[in-house]
Amino acid sequence: MFKKNAAIFLGVILLISSEAFSQATPLSKARPIPGKENWQAAIPLPGQEKAAAEKLAALQKKTGKKPNIVWFLIDDMGHGDPGFNGGGATIGAATPNMDRLAANGLKLTSTYSQPTCTPTRSAILTGRIPARTGLTRPILTGDKLTKNPWEDEISLPAVLSSAGYKSVLTGKWHIGELEGMRPFDVGFDEYYGYYGAEKEISQEFDKRRYPDLVLDSFKLDAYHKSGASKDLVYGKKGGKEQLIKATTSVEDMAEADQVLKDFSIKKIREFAKSGEPFFLEHSFMKVHTDVWASKKFEGKSASKYPYKDGVVEVDAIIGEIVSELEKNGLLENTFIFITSDNGPQMDAWPDAGFTPFRGTKGSAWEGGTRVPGVVYWKGMIKPRESAELFDLMDLYNTTAAIAGAIDKVPTDRPIDGINQVGFLLADNGQSARDRIHTWVERDLVAIRIHEFKMYFMITESDNPHLMIDQSTITKSGLAPWLFNLYIDPKESRVVGHALNAWTASISAEAKYHAASFVKFPPKNVGL
Amino acid sequence: MFKKNAAIFLGVILLISSEAFSQATPLSKARPIPGKENWQAAIPLPGQEKAAAEKLAALQKKTGKKPNIVWFLIDDMGHGDPGFNGGGATIGAATPNMDRLAANGLKLTSTYSQPTCTPTRSAILTGRIPARTGLTRPILTGDKLTKNPWEDEISLPAVLSSAGYKSVLTGKWHIGELEGMRPFDVGFDEYYGYYGAEKEISQEFDKRRYPDLVLDSFKLDAYHKSGASKDLVYGKKGGKEQLIKATTSVEDMAEADQVLKDFSIKKIREFAKSGEPFFLEHSFMKVHTDVWASKKFEGKSASKYPYKDGVVEVDAIIGEIVSELEKNGLLENTFIFITSDNGPQMDAWPDAGFTPFRGTKGSAWEGGTRVPGVVYWKGMIKPRESAELFDLMDLYNTTAAIAGAIDKVPTDRPIDGINQVGFLLADNGQSARDRIHTWVERDLVAIRIHEFKMYFMITESDNPHLMIDQSTITKSGLAPWLFNLYIDPKESRVVGHALNAWTASISAEAKYHAASFVKFPPKNVGL
Repeated sequence: MFKKNAAIFLGVILLISSEAFSQATPLSKARPIPGKENWQAAIPLPGQEKAAAEKLAALQKKTGKKPNIVWFLIDDMGHGDPGFNGGGATIGAATPNMDRLAANGLKLTSTYSQPTCTPTRSAILTGRIPARTGLTRPILTGDKLTKNPWEDEISLPAVLSSAGYKSVLTGKWHIGELEGMRPFDVGFDEYYGYYGAEKEISQEFDKRRYPDLVLDSFKLDAYHKSGASKDLVYGKKGGKEQLIKATTSVEDMAEADQVLKDFSIKKIREFAKSGEPFFLEHSFMKVHTDVWASKKFEGKSASKYPYKDGVVEVDAIIGEIVSELEKNGLLENTFIFITSDNGPQMDAWPDAGFTPFRGTKGSAWEGGTRVPGVVYWKGMIKPRESAELFDLMDLYNTTAAIAGAIDKVPTDRPIDGINQVGFLLADNGQSARDRIHTWVERDLVAIRIHEFKMYFMITESDNPHLMIDQSTITKSGLAPWLFNLYIDPKESRVVGHALNAWTASISAEAKYHAASFVKFPPKNVGL
Repeated sequence: MFKKNAAIFLGVILLISSEAFSQATPLSKARPIPGKENWQAAIPLPGQEKAAAEKLAALQKKTGKKPNIVWFLIDDMGHGDPGFNGGGATIGAATPNMDRLAANGLKLTSTYSQPTCTPTRSAILTGRIPARTGLTRPILTGDKLTKNPWEDEISLPAVLSSAGYKSVLTGKWHIGELEGMRPFDVGFDEYYGYYGAEKEISQEFDKRRYPDLVLDSFKLDAYHKSGASKDLVYGKKGGKEQLIKATTSVEDMAEADQVLKDFSIKKIREFAKSGEPFFLEHSFMKVHTDVWASKKFEGKSASKYPYKDGVVEVDAIIGEIVSELEKNGLLENTFIFITSDNGPQMDAWPDAGFTPFRGTKGSAWEGGTRVPGVVYWKGMIKPRESAELFDLMDLYNTTAAIAGAIDKVPTDRPIDGINQVGFLLADNGQSARDRIHTWVERDLVAIRIHEFKMYFMITESDNPHLMIDQSTITKSGLAPWLFNLYIDPKESRVVGHALNAWTASISAEAKYHAASFVKFPPKNVGL
């Protein structure tokens, strides 16, 4: 395990011979990519890469344009919430739009995020594990960063920009509010949204849930002085931040996703007219606690609970935006990805998300990092389902590749995402990834290779519904904590001693992985 | 709660005024069916019943024949095992055939069984709760029944026989091995299978798992004297039992489902030739513990574990039988239902079934009774998914209705199944059922109405993976144990005091339900 103490961390690493670094573990089929040895090793699958490249070329020939990219990033939605993963109407919140896209696209049942918000959001825009960028945990109101983490990172919109793309981020950001760290400072051409999470913004208006804040003038004053950003703002690349609308009530926040939707739709219409290729990251405020559906959606879920109404609203918005792409003739030329930034959050449980797995947001358990994953691209993807591994960081390289900009992805530093164009686009494509590294803040906590997941550190909660950082117990140095996710998807029974060969393999992979942190030391930005 | 002590049971009941019996509970839309007041109350949905009847009439006009019925009953398969419920390849055992039928048929996500084998198997063939028929728990080797439970029951094959159908049961029976209780004694025209469960039959050959039985001649002798039936037998209505093949090894049992498949395929070919309408209950030996896949399927699942290989084999057999129906031109004229007899069993855990819910086989928790449910009928069912309630007992009335024999279902006794033809066949049909009564042996343990499930008795295990009757704790008489299955599908948080109106409603339903047991006292057959 790699603890915060850098001395221990490096101590472990330096024991490893340099020869070991170049070897893939016996359990893995992945190999370092020639010429790109700093990138995450990948399974060579040249046949399907060729097939995908041909598909992309044929489409570009047909349309005469580069393809567009739309990501839908839902906040804190659980793996089990959408109907396509067993939730939906069965748990009181039907999701017909997402289900339709999943049924007609590629459903990825083993998609992994980081355990929390800022780490995932930064990882998908940099292709890099949060320990590398320093964005290891959610930035909280009042956090003083010692360094701008973006300073020496190459963001995805910057990569796309060099290939002629316009990039827009609508909605939640949560990767820095100060000058130099805002979306329009780090590569996005336009930003329209809220910097923080729903709860951080709305709590001062919610005397029902936070009487200790709202009804206590001393605390409310302190809260205001903390400088929490709570307003809807707009910014253009290289420009200044503009206030669009101040948030002054719970009702404002309830309508936020409708307002954000209107902006994304406006941009889609503009891009359809201009014909420019675009990357739109539509980042929902919902369904982060505290959820209130917009007026139109209140009570619209069968369960009538706010979280569930929020799921229904998010689903409807996805439907509206996809329909807008269609109306503007863009659907056949747009790669769409739907996911969540981490497992469900339990602050308002049981009016919260659902995962069939162990653990929740914040933990390295499957419940913390296994998220919904759907790729939809009309005419370009054969409808199917895959249980092979996909890490949301793969979106970085994959999006770059779709945009024809994979050669703009830097090779001078570790890139942990893998180009999965072949997996996603080739008929019956296979994943080029057979392992997932699960970090929690500055610790490498677990590695999954194939169906085996080994923990170097175990964090247990005495209440399975609480977030992992509340009333938890940490264990480490015990018997090999190896789980078989095929026969034990809920991670209840350790099989480490029975499968020593795999614990050795995964330990070797941990050393191999750690080696890149010796060559490229982790960044510390004061989080 | 209604305990085994009949005096207590009746004491509770007699407090209820007769007027209350005729009232539906406020939370329910169900009403007693005029002229059939002994049947389970149902939601009147005349429009969709008419639509379904018209569809059936049009098909019969087209084919000139009555429709056939095929049930696939898988032993102990978990709700989460098939791909269409989130399992499949994701947990190491792909189920492409079942997934295809689910995607092109009606997927029922809230299908309920009884908590164990014999109760479910008898309930679907009688339409009656096991407490009524006396078949309240699995019949075990050596059990001496004091009465033939079938003596005064009207089995589904008997009902269908009066409408000109031939009925065949292939595979596991487990509802009595003595004369008068075997499938060909109680209405089936033919039976070809094993009376008992896989484990009961094979354990004497398995010295790896049961050394204490197999390697101890005294115990082995006692086991043989217990008279466990372990052979493949055949019987014709009114005829004698014939030995087809003695089971003499684990390998025999491993091949059992292949042998059973061959019989069902043979019968399908015969019926296709004769043109007679038929009811085939194909009842798998798998995936009841102890599972060994047939030679052909060993190691065929990605996980390589026996249970998973068994799931893959079951799925392949379903594919082969459905394909046989198609080859013989019967697919458009055959109603197909796929399900499991109860939640996953945990004797061999973790090489066992998967449920995302709380509890397992034997318990009243969702994990014990929520089972996969798929209806497939080419051309007759609009592909869709429904989270509305379906009780496997509904198969009794529904199958009778499809066969045009609903008027042969007896009205002189309680029938707990509901005719769901409108739900299953009408486009966007709704369930005529809004409540589920969960019995465990002779106790009414819980009632679900809509998303609310109230327990009158709680049985907890200190290990969530064990069967409920091993190392468990029973609690009763505590605060209202009401769960909201929409926001809390894992049944972790009691909301009884918050929702007293619903606890009162469900208590009223319990009294209403219990009243039928005063008028028609439960049968005791010595189980």
